[in-house]
Amino acid sequence: MSDSSEKPLLALTMGDPSGVGPEVIAGVWNNEIVHEVCRPVVLGDPGIMQRAVELKNANVTIDSIGEFEAGAEKTSATCMPCLSCSEIDLSRMEPGMVTSDTGLAAYDAIITATELAKSGRADGMVTAPISKTGMRAAGKDYPGHTELLAELCGVSEFAMMLYLPQRYLPKTSHGLGVVHVTLHTSVRDAVNSITIEAILEKCRLADQAARAYGAVSPKVGVAALNPHGGEGGLFGSEEIRVIEPAVAQAQAMGIHAIGPLPADTLMVRASQGEFDIVVAMLHDQGHIALKLLGMHSAVNVTLGLPIVRTSVAHGTAGDLAWRGIAETSGMISAIEAAASLSKGRKDRLAGMMS
Amino acid sequence: MSDSSEKPLLALTMGDPSGVGPEVIAGVWNNEIVHEVCRPVVLGDPGIMQRAVELKNANVTIDSIGEFEAGAEKTSATCMPCLSCSEIDLSRMEPGMVTSDTGLAAYDAIITATELAKSGRADGMVTAPISKTGMRAAGKDYPGHTELLAELCGVSEFAMMLYLPQRYLPKTSHGLGVVHVTLHTSVRDAVNSITIEAILEKCRLADQAARAYGAVSPKVGVAALNPHGGEGGLFGSEEIRVIEPAVAQAQAMGIHAIGPLPADTLMVRASQGEFDIVVAMLHDQGHIALKLLGMHSAVNVTLGLPIVRTSVAHGTAGDLAWRGIAETSGMISAIEAAASLSKGRKDRLAGMMS
Repeated sequence: MSDSSEKPLLALTMGDPSGVGPEVIAGVWNNEIVHEVCRPVVLGDPGIMQRAVELKNANVTIDSIGEFEAGAEKTSATCMPCLSCSEIDLSRMEPGMVTSDTGLAAYDAIITATELAKSGRADGMVTAPISKTGMRAAGKDYPGHTELLAELCGVSEFAMMLYLPQRYLPKTSHGLGVVHVTLHTSVRDAVNSITIEAILEKCRLADQAARAYGAVSPKVGVAALNPHGGEGGLFGSEEIRVIEPAVAQAQAMGIHAIGPLPADTLMVRASQGEFDIVVAMLHDQGHIALKLLGMHSAVNVTLGLPIVRTSVAHGTAGDLAWRGIAETSGMISAIEAAASLSKGRKDRLAGMMS
Repeated sequence: MSDSSEKPLLALTMGDPSGVGPEVIAGVWNNEIVHEVCRPVVLGDPGIMQRAVELKNANVTIDSIGEFEAGAEKTSATCMPCLSCSEIDLSRMEPGMVTSDTGLAAYDAIITATELAKSGRADGMVTAPISKTGMRAAGKDYPGHTELLAELCGVSEFAMMLYLPQRYLPKTSHGLGVVHVTLHTSVRDAVNSITIEAILEKCRLADQAARAYGAVSPKVGVAALNPHGGEGGLFGSEEIRVIEPAVAQAQAMGIHAIGPLPADTLMVRASQGEFDIVVAMLHDQGHIALKLLGMHSAVNVTLGLPIVRTSVAHGTAGDLAWRGIAETSGMISAIEAAASLSKGRKDRLAGMMS
């Protein structure tokens, strides 16, 4: 495990090579924030990363390394250490064309990064976007990173938090996280997955996450599912049957949960600092809000894992991949968030051992 | 019908008297924009409006009128003509307490305003928020204004558009409207209401509405229902089975419809001016976005009616009603939007007759 006084050593997975992952990594490599907050090492195909660096005209040399730790010494704003994690030949990869090969290459990098983080050789991992279609074609059928990582880490209680740093939300104290009760599932199925237990679990994880990013006694705003919060039962009964009892149970456990509140006004109030974190019922409730508030800078954080993992919040964007125009601010935010959470984790571990 | 060269004559309904309606009307009466763009007349209880004016310390005299047209002459920044529309005694109305009386009084004002607008005696109507619970207690069981107005006007093809003026979205040409395929219904029921026919109807109304607010050959962005637009069928089949065919049919009809697009990125792109109007599948898709972008200034516009009708986008807010703190910017926007649409309508009528 790296010295807690050093900058966190982060594993950056390249994502699906046919998407925007390689170029957003290449595009931020010269950014000084990145190397101020961490020591980054790329996990992925060196040939693909070379193409991405050329696409972005970045002043960066690829250094193909045989062992992760070698990257810790070599990484700098002009040197990108790159650890190959896969046997897949990507020399004929075509931009925007997802195949079983691109899916498997993305998967292999995640597996290696997770092993490095679990063993403590990496302080955290930052992931570029994958294609669920590619993963499925490769026989790896997961709705997204989150579910795969939970399986690899052997945890059953987990959640994806979408997070926007404080600089995008000046009225909040610590930025704003949104934890989703349902995520990568159809709306039809989501409605049936919203149970008292599921909401309670996300309230617990939200409370922990808000404390981790600095809130003392966090106020957890719990969204309604239905328009106007169900309007007293006229537009759906989930608020009365499920969400209200879950909020009451969370309160009984000492969590400062408030809700259910209509999602549209809750998101406005939370953006103005009235809540430290939000528990949303549907994917789009959180994503519409934080993408509008932070455009390309929202970050995904997986909660409930024994490792630190953040991700850009956008997808592979195959339609604009490898044209050099993909927004890179999300990758900078994801690296910043991982570095900050890794440092907090190392400080806590150091405190426990002293 | 009033002279087309004159300012539009607008009927303002007070909404449920126990909510924030009366005070937001009283609160904007001194605002010069209001009297620059229209001649406003209040439909509601003069005693309630007197209390609201006193609450807001507004420099306004209530003038209780016996006939709507009398208000056209009298209205000014310091005189509020008020037409009583109901036999209900509201002298014992308590702030925040919705009753069958408050529901019926609100309903009666809507009935009168609609009659005035249908007959051309008013150029349009602007409505303050009502309580569905109060309306239901009064035996008037409608999900909202929109459905009641459609029935009163005898139309079956209608929609609620949430609209934010251009000054809140400087990158758009004409502001941004969102037309909802489903609105005041539970998410569970909404999923089953999203049909090819329903989407087509809303695409037609959206295309017309965007033309009405000034877009030439409007680009209509059609939202997906499911996360990531269903991710190629992995997270729901509605995009493939329903939304894609509807978009294709809309295109065949000459509408410049584009989609289905994931709702979170669509709303960002639309806010940056890439689309003239959006068709959303669920209430919260549009409401989360426009409330975040315009806070209290989003406006409801009913499409498909033979009359002009706008409304504030917020509810009765019983918890903060009659404390004088309710935001009034939504009422100003609603009046501005109604005046602008009324004027456009009068100009078109004048053109047709010349």
